Amino acid sequence: MADKQANEEKHLNILLFSADYDKCLAAFILANGARDMGMQVTIFCAFWGLLILREEHKVSPKNKDLYKKIFAAMTPANVEDLPLSKMNFAGVGKSMLVSMMDNQDAPHLSDFLRGARNKGVRFCACKLSMEIMGFTEEELISDIEVADVKIYLEDAAKADISLFI
Amino acid sequence: MADKQANEEKHLNILLFSADYDKCLAAFILANGARDMGMQVTIFCAFWGLLILREEHKVSPKNKDLYKKIFAAMTPANVEDLPLSKMNFAGVGKSMLVSMMDNQDAPHLSDFLRGARNKGVRFCACKLSMEIMGFTEEELISDIEVADVKIYLEDAAKADISLFI
Amino acid sequence: MADKQANEEKHLNILLFSADYDKCLAAFILANGARDMGMQVTIFCAFWGLLILREEHKVSPKNKDLYKKIFAAMTPANVEDLPLSKMNFAGVGKSMLVSMMDNQDAPHLSDFLRGARNKGVRFCACKLSMEIMGFTEEELISDIEVADVKIYLEDAAKADISLFI
Repeated sequence: MADKQANEEKHLNILLFSADYDKCLAAFILANGARDMGMQVTIFCAFWGLLILREEHKVSPKNKDLYKKIFAAMTPANVEDLPLSKMNFAGVGKSMLVSMMDNQDAPHLSDFLRGARNKGVRFCACKLSMEIMGFTEEELISDIEVADVKIYLEDAAKADISLFI
Repeated sequence: MADKQANEEKHLNILLFSADYDKCLAAFILANGARDMGMQVTIFCAFWGLLILREEHKVSPKNKDLYKKIFAAMTPANVEDLPLSKMNFAGVGKSMLVSMMDNQDAPHLSDFLRGARNKGVRFCACKLSMEIMGFTEEELISDIEVADVKIYLEDAAKADISLFI
Repeated sequence: MADKQANEEKHLNILLFSADYDKCLAAFILANGARDMGMQVTIFCAFWGLLILREEHKVSPKNKDLYKKIFAAMTPANVEDLPLSKMNFAGVGKSMLVSMMDNQDAPHLSDFLRGARNKGVRFCACKLSMEIMGFTEEELISDIEVADVKIYLEDAAKADISLFI
């Protein structure tokens, strides 16, 4: 508890650029661990990282131009469908990793995401990336802050740890 | 303006290791955004990141051994030819991303690179990487500082944000 | 020497997530360079990064369940067998990069790893990753500290440079 108070001034900032299952898992393990220690945590989702913020049933092709329709349809709308950064790393596939995690009773990415939101991790969606990729605020899970690069830089400059994942 | 002055002491350091189009784009959006806020910015290009510093018409096979000749010929000499980090991410190719950026009037990587140089971003080329990859100073765009790992570490240790991209 | 003393307070923390030959090379060049300058250095190996800490002849299928046996057999147990992050980057393969390094008398990854240990780099193996991947402490090279995410976050929050590689 005293420990937790001592860490309250500390701050972790993650720029989540990747949508690889294993890299997102690493980001959430860090974020949740930091919150458990009492640190402030911001996850700024840009480019592929935006994919973790989409609400599966809200993804809609309406009001999108052709490219954005194709893009929305082709990218996984559910975090559990994200690929591994090493898809075929020495033949080790994602289903195998997930099975190994099951055997260890380790939570899945969707559990970590839910946990991070409950623990008070601040999530930001990169405004510019949303414009380029054609994602609308309505397609995101609720209570996500849409923020520009200035917001990211101010937060990261104050952080004790800034990581690009 | 007051804002800009307050940020003048702040410093962003990027170690650009990747030559993926999307990752380079992210690096330049951060670098240009930071300069617009008045922050100091250093981009230290190592390994594949060196590819963005080559001047297309200056790349020359002269005085290179066989490997370096092949290497020079096979790596893209123009930043717009760089691949995506997720080449086939769910079928979304680079031409599609570039089209989506066109639809948003978003500038391309080559525009961002030009902008970053005009805005006063400090660019360093990693000396060791140049030796291994067989790139010469004459092949780089003008006014690039060739620097060793010590220079990088000193700059990064003083920075408020250090990212490995 | 005065330089070295001035840097003794400085601290570099690397979270090594990748097992790509080129990215590991970058991590070790930074770590060894920082030690040469007198900086403190911690490399926290998680997920694929754990692969660099395995002792080739100690990797054993004993006491592993089926998935872990397959995993242990399929992942390279020798650091020199790690792949490139851009396996087929414009046709440039790893053997070519290694040949180019040979021509420059640049040390290989295994030399850098040995050097880093001799220079006093602190190596940590991520406890959670070991459990998920089914690696045991006996399979690691000697004198590796098994540490949890809390240890990582405390070390990184104190560091002057924190990188996710």
